[in-house]
Amino acid sequence: MANPRELKLPTRFGKRIPGAAPGIYPDQLDKLAPPKLPAGPVKVTVIDYAPEQVEMHGVLDFEAFLQSHRPAWSSVRWINIDGLTDLKAIEALAKKYELHPLAVEDLLNTTTRPKADAYGGDPQVAARLFIITRMIELKQERLDSEQISIFLGHKTVLTFQESPGDIWDPIRGRINARGSRLRVGDASFLVYTLLDAIVDNIFPVLEHYGDRLEDLEIDVVGGRKPDILLEIHRMKRELLLLRRALWPMRDVVHQLQGERHECLSETTRTYMTDLYDHVVQAMDILETYREVVAGLAETHLSTVNNRLNEIMKVLAVISVVFIPLNFMAGMFGMNFERFPWKWEHAFPAFLIACLAIVFGMVGWFRRHDWI
Amino acid sequence: MANPRELKLPTRFGKRIPGAAPGIYPDQLDKLAPPKLPAGPVKVTVIDYAPEQVEMHGVLDFEAFLQSHRPAWSSVRWINIDGLTDLKAIEALAKKYELHPLAVEDLLNTTTRPKADAYGGDPQVAARLFIITRMIELKQERLDSEQISIFLGHKTVLTFQESPGDIWDPIRGRINARGSRLRVGDASFLVYTLLDAIVDNIFPVLEHYGDRLEDLEIDVVGGRKPDILLEIHRMKRELLLLRRALWPMRDVVHQLQGERHECLSETTRTYMTDLYDHVVQAMDILETYREVVAGLAETHLSTVNNRLNEIMKVLAVISVVFIPLNFMAGMFGMNFERFPWKWEHAFPAFLIACLAIVFGMVGWFRRHDWI
Amino acid sequence: MANPRELKLPTRFGKRIPGAAPGIYPDQLDKLAPPKLPAGPVKVTVIDYAPEQVEMHGVLDFEAFLQSHRPAWSSVRWINIDGLTDLKAIEALAKKYELHPLAVEDLLNTTTRPKADAYGGDPQVAARLFIITRMIELKQERLDSEQISIFLGHKTVLTFQESPGDIWDPIRGRINARGSRLRVGDASFLVYTLLDAIVDNIFPVLEHYGDRLEDLEIDVVGGRKPDILLEIHRMKRELLLLRRALWPMRDVVHQLQGERHECLSETTRTYMTDLYDHVVQAMDILETYREVVAGLAETHLSTVNNRLNEIMKVLAVISVVFIPLNFMAGMFGMNFERFPWKWEHAFPAFLIACLAIVFGMVGWFRRHDWI
Amino acid sequence: MANPRELKLPTRFGKRIPGAAPGIYPDQLDKLAPPKLPAGPVKVTVIDYAPEQVEMHGVLDFEAFLQSHRPAWSSVRWINIDGLTDLKAIEALAKKYELHPLAVEDLLNTTTRPKADAYGGDPQVAARLFIITRMIELKQERLDSEQISIFLGHKTVLTFQESPGDIWDPIRGRINARGSRLRVGDASFLVYTLLDAIVDNIFPVLEHYGDRLEDLEIDVVGGRKPDILLEIHRMKRELLLLRRALWPMRDVVHQLQGERHECLSETTRTYMTDLYDHVVQAMDILETYREVVAGLAETHLSTVNNRLNEIMKVLAVISVVFIPLNFMAGMFGMNFERFPWKWEHAFPAFLIACLAIVFGMVGWFRRHDWI
Amino acid sequence: MANPRELKLPTRFGKRIPGAAPGIYPDQLDKLAPPKLPAGPVKVTVIDYAPEQVEMHGVLDFEAFLQSHRPAWSSVRWINIDGLTDLKAIEALAKKYELHPLAVEDLLNTTTRPKADAYGGDPQVAARLFIITRMIELKQERLDSEQISIFLGHKTVLTFQESPGDIWDPIRGRINARGSRLRVGDASFLVYTLLDAIVDNIFPVLEHYGDRLEDLEIDVVGGRKPDILLEIHRMKRELLLLRRALWPMRDVVHQLQGERHECLSETTRTYMTDLYDHVVQAMDILETYREVVAGLAETHLSTVNNRLNEIMKVLAVISVVFIPLNFMAGMFGMNFERFPWKWEHAFPAFLIACLAIVFGMVGWFRRHDWI
Repeated sequence: MANPRELKLPTRFGKRIPGAAPGIYPDQLDKLAPPKLPAGPVKVTVIDYAPEQVEMHGVLDFEAFLQSHRPAWSSVRWINIDGLTDLKAIEALAKKYELHPLAVEDLLNTTTRPKADAYGGDPQVAARLFIITRMIELKQERLDSEQISIFLGHKTVLTFQESPGDIWDPIRGRINARGSRLRVGDASFLVYTLLDAIVDNIFPVLEHYGDRLEDLEIDVVGGRKPDILLEIHRMKRELLLLRRALWPMRDVVHQLQGERHECLSETTRTYMTDLYDHVVQAMDILETYREVVAGLAETHLSTVNNRLNEIMKVLAVISVVFIPLNFMAGMFGMNFERFPWKWEHAFPAFLIACLAIVFGMVGWFRRHDWI
Repeated sequence: MANPRELKLPTRFGKRIPGAAPGIYPDQLDKLAPPKLPAGPVKVTVIDYAPEQVEMHGVLDFEAFLQSHRPAWSSVRWINIDGLTDLKAIEALAKKYELHPLAVEDLLNTTTRPKADAYGGDPQVAARLFIITRMIELKQERLDSEQISIFLGHKTVLTFQESPGDIWDPIRGRINARGSRLRVGDASFLVYTLLDAIVDNIFPVLEHYGDRLEDLEIDVVGGRKPDILLEIHRMKRELLLLRRALWPMRDVVHQLQGERHECLSETTRTYMTDLYDHVVQAMDILETYREVVAGLAETHLSTVNNRLNEIMKVLAVISVVFIPLNFMAGMFGMNFERFPWKWEHAFPAFLIACLAIVFGMVGWFRRHDWI
Repeated sequence: MANPRELKLPTRFGKRIPGAAPGIYPDQLDKLAPPKLPAGPVKVTVIDYAPEQVEMHGVLDFEAFLQSHRPAWSSVRWINIDGLTDLKAIEALAKKYELHPLAVEDLLNTTTRPKADAYGGDPQVAARLFIITRMIELKQERLDSEQISIFLGHKTVLTFQESPGDIWDPIRGRINARGSRLRVGDASFLVYTLLDAIVDNIFPVLEHYGDRLEDLEIDVVGGRKPDILLEIHRMKRELLLLRRALWPMRDVVHQLQGERHECLSETTRTYMTDLYDHVVQAMDILETYREVVAGLAETHLSTVNNRLNEIMKVLAVISVVFIPLNFMAGMFGMNFERFPWKWEHAFPAFLIACLAIVFGMVGWFRRHDWI
Repeated sequence: MANPRELKLPTRFGKRIPGAAPGIYPDQLDKLAPPKLPAGPVKVTVIDYAPEQVEMHGVLDFEAFLQSHRPAWSSVRWINIDGLTDLKAIEALAKKYELHPLAVEDLLNTTTRPKADAYGGDPQVAARLFIITRMIELKQERLDSEQISIFLGHKTVLTFQESPGDIWDPIRGRINARGSRLRVGDASFLVYTLLDAIVDNIFPVLEHYGDRLEDLEIDVVGGRKPDILLEIHRMKRELLLLRRALWPMRDVVHQLQGERHECLSETTRTYMTDLYDHVVQAMDILETYREVVAGLAETHLSTVNNRLNEIMKVLAVISVVFIPLNFMAGMFGMNFERFPWKWEHAFPAFLIACLAIVFGMVGWFRRHDWI
Repeated sequence: MANPRELKLPTRFGKRIPGAAPGIYPDQLDKLAPPKLPAGPVKVTVIDYAPEQVEMHGVLDFEAFLQSHRPAWSSVRWINIDGLTDLKAIEALAKKYELHPLAVEDLLNTTTRPKADAYGGDPQVAARLFIITRMIELKQERLDSEQISIFLGHKTVLTFQESPGDIWDPIRGRINARGSRLRVGDASFLVYTLLDAIVDNIFPVLEHYGDRLEDLEIDVVGGRKPDILLEIHRMKRELLLLRRALWPMRDVVHQLQGERHECLSETTRTYMTDLYDHVVQAMDILETYREVVAGLAETHLSTVNNRLNEIMKVLAVISVVFIPLNFMAGMFGMNFERFPWKWEHAFPAFLIACLAIVFGMVGWFRRHDWI
């Protein structure tokens, strides 16, 4: 509840007012109410790198940054923006890097479905590849999901995150490492690396669910735990949400693998194929989990039915055996004046009759496989 | 019941008599019985706009309007007709704007499935794009659905609504706003904007269901509410109806995005791609809701079964423990003359036997995990 | 049972003997046993029409008819044959109009799946479009289904029906009406009109099921009606049969809409697109109905389970409260000689103990939400 | 069990040893263990025919037959081999007719999935069409299935059956009949005819299941028969097996209809389209049956639940009414010394109290719709 | 548990750290921690063969082996590596045979999804076909699964196995056999043969499940065995895992059959078609098994329900008959002072009343089909 980024059933959509103009143009941004996100300082980090050199610095004076040009040696510039609350900054970046208004709108709406849009191809629109994806992590046993928006230009990569803190520190390390293949690559290879990290990060999440699933299975088969039903329900639901988040990411990678776009180098596309294999494997495991959970739910239902059956069998056997005996005992407890059987051996006869009934019943049950 | 536009299971179709001629030609309209819609005055509104100028007025004298020509400066004319009961007016418009008879037929039948038909391409038929869609709103907690028919010509847009009142007022405002992008766009961009408003309007409806779904989930997991089954049923059904309304709209937008038609500008088609993403996202959320409801129904069934199981367990334990005790008590209440056990310690012995039975039973239940 | 044309689960197929020669050639027809259909006179009606003129007459002297030629002014000749029992007549027609043997075989077998076969394209086979479809009507609350076979040549349409009586009288009326669009159209437009009437006729059938479905829903939700299960079963089954009949018709219209055949004019294909929309809408409604029925069956099952649960709860509460009381009452009814409690206040104490047990039990049930 | 050809769940596969060489070359055949089939004499029959002439004879001296050439007038030679146990003969035929080793392997393995393989196209491999299909019959109420392998060359057809006895006698008769269309056709037309007979033979099998299904439905709806569950299970399973056998046959015919192979004449492909319609119809009926059975299983389950509900209701009503009465009776049967109510009208009061309880309970049940 | 190679629900993935560089380059291998596999000596075996000659030897001195060249007469060299723990050796091989870094990464990760990747086509990347598949065996009644990685070059085949011991000994035998077709074939034919052995090996596994399934069916239909539910669950799960392993293998073979790659000869592709048929057959059987198990689970559930029904019926009949009798007996056991019925024939009357009640009840049950 406290975590605004928790992956949950979507019930609130940050959609603009119906009928409003499509797309958000840079000059509209200052009139917009900021998205309902945890407020906080927006952090902009710039990394310039080339095979020979690398420079990494946080941006303190944003105005100055916008005026400045990139160093001549820089082959790729990666600008990472943490936080979407400073619309001014986004406006300035949108203007400087000619981001498409529809893309800016999607970027600010943090419930957008993962997708990849290619802009450009004709002279008046700048060639850009716009990718929306979700970074999925486990935080305190709960699925945490953050929208990541990536703009890829010819030599520039812009990444927008909802809030600071990400899983890309190893990548920053690799950029710093002299001679790493990443530093030799172009901007599209950086985007591939970022996506690869996001996809790889899904596997620990899957491992978490795999473990829980194994525990759940032991509990269902053991049949002891009382509130297992709710756990199955929760499991089902979380896997559904996870699948909902993963499925469009699969489409995005598939599209990137096949897309021919001027910002996407041939080498990167080869690597995208490998990435696609990973996404498919993640989906495959997820679907297997979902099938197993569905099977567990069925088995649980059958187990409950079986136990009910057994309980009823015991109840029925005991009742059916004792009900006639009870009646006999009751009959001989009646206070009639003239009770015919004042017979001497009445009690032993009663006992024998009782035993006969019991053995008859038990025999009948045996023959019908009840006990 | 009172609302003729409520979205419900279709059981009445406004189809013509089987065997009747296909299509409705303008000259047939005056012989037709008006469709079974709430009667009322038909309101025609005309908006002419160009980047520089805009004129908006209701049509009072329909005959005069038909004779008049549009102002020379007008780059787009949008004629909105509220109400389908004045067949004369529709006849006049159909003649003036060369609407295809099949399209007129679909327009008058308010249960037509959303679709997009392209007419034209050969000289004798006027180039028109005919779109049928549904405007879905929540009115007093109920789904309200209205058929919207849109004709797109080169410079003209005709929209037909079942009844007055719509969600397009913001668009009218944007047309009035000098310098808005809408006013610079062509007729097809106006159609895109209208469709966009309709699709955006689905999200508040989805939010409503998302909220109800969350409440429902709490109730199911809590297991307290008695008539939850009917609520699940109602939810399932409404989502089914919503899906039935959305699914063909997805096809319509997909078709418009891919269609190459002379009335559809290239820019508009780019925007249609964005619209398509929105429809897909709406469908995606809807399908997720449907899966969650299906899961809730299953969980509810299992919960009921579980509770039954527990009830039966308590009943069985109590019965099974007391039935033999009862029999013993009954046995010693018999009125035989010669009762063998006139033993002094009979009662304490009886009590001990009872306790032994109770403890034996409880032990057995313990071992079998009943209690 | 009495109605040989009732739409039901197919269990008898009018297939020829396995291994028999494929196709039925005109000269084989006289050796064939007539199909097992209600015998009766075969009625042949011929309609010749052109924009200016129309002639309609039943054929009494079949031999003479075969020898005669059509009037020179006739632009379309429609021959309608009611009844398939006069194999001689079919043989003569097959010879005269060069019908393909495989088509004749399918035409005589009244359980053929709706389909459209195109013959021709090479010189030695006459260009024909052969369409099999089913006319579905409601007769006394039961689905009635009749196979309709249509041959379309360049200027001729042959239609074969299983028995007299059809839904095409409005079409005959339109042919008679001077200036109707049908009379201006070619032979393929007539075929479109015939198919259109058949498809339009499905909607009243759907309305019937829609009404029954609404009644059923009220009954299920009310939960009162005892034999609702069988009604759901019957509904499910009839919708399955209806779907089985409609599905291939959808394929037929889809094929006709896309097919380029020399007997099919371009105008007709435009109209076929509209017809296809209608079939798709019918299928769409049918599938919605099927989903609703499936949902009803599930809701019904859950309702039954819920009621069982409630019944068991009442039984369990009463049993569990009274069983210990009964035991106590029984205990104090025992006839021991030395009954220890000859205490003065035994009975009031007993009553107090009973009340204590009752209140304890009820409190326990309350805490566990049973009552 | 006794019938080795009964269609059943596949659990034994006649696959060669893993790692063995693929394909069976003629010179390997004599080293192979014969397939585990009922041993018996292998019968070879040869039919030569041309429009003018026909010759049919069993082969007694196999060696001589191999040396001999076909008569010059023969346009088609059909060699039918009943039994797969004489590997020598198969070896000789494989050599003479240049059968592909992979095809020979599939032919000897009687659990091969129906398929159509085209060989040839390049000079060193003989042009052959190799078809594996299954002949399905009902023998003593059980599904009997036999693998049929067909090789089609330019002028030769080879058919291999597992054991003597088939459904092709009418075809042999038609070959004998002077002037039959079969005799005028080429070798591929013969293959079509053979496949057509196999497909037509499925319809009587379907009729058998259709009849059983109708009986089953009456039993389920009647709700009387005790072991109906097992019958539903058996039905489901047999339809599953039948579907498993039919489905690949559909693919085979579909492939033959579309395939352009030098051994397949254009006329034959037209006829294959008709055959494909028949297979599709058979599949369609089968799927309908499967849906009906699934529906029956659900209805049966609901019926059982309903009956349980009713039983429990009766039990609950009786128990709930009598349990308090019993307690009262028991209470007044207690042997306290000082029983307070030695009132004169105790017994009538007791009876009145009992009646009050009964009427109260019954009223309560009425209000809650139990009775 | 003890078996690290057992086919089970995937819960641990040998993925690298998210954000790490994609692919593993030869020079990184010595820095890597070896995969978590049973440690053990890595065994390298080299087989050189040509139609005329064959040489097979284990590699003891790996350094020397790397320096040496293959004999001039060798047409195919097959290097098999058992064990993935010696990263040095893998590094050396990766360098020598120019294996792609992404392929090396997949090879070391033993949970990779089966796939086929084609490298090459442009000058700087060596043409390689990289195939990952799984060898599935039954070991002590449990599914054992091992990842097999195959590199195919022009004249070289490299195979990597997780641990020693495989199913390829017959293939080694065939290489040794002078004149075997395998020895005449090229390197891609060897790969086909290896894959063929892996696929053929699935059939004994399927046979095992087929047998278990038949036993299971007898038990379910018999309805006697108590823990059948868990067996069904286990069966379902193992078939799911098997399917998960087989499904991507089907894709791999399908891809190889269609792929045009310079290392894949035309002959091999023909054989791949046959292999594909086998995989499809295996999948087909597996899906049939899965459907049968699903059907068994349903039948089992219904059986349990049926039995519950019967138990409740017996319990209800006995209870309902005896409860009123008990009440009567209790009533006449009351100790009222003034008991009205001191009638002489009270006891016989009581007995007659009891019998009347019994017969009435039984009659009622008969009429309602309870007994």
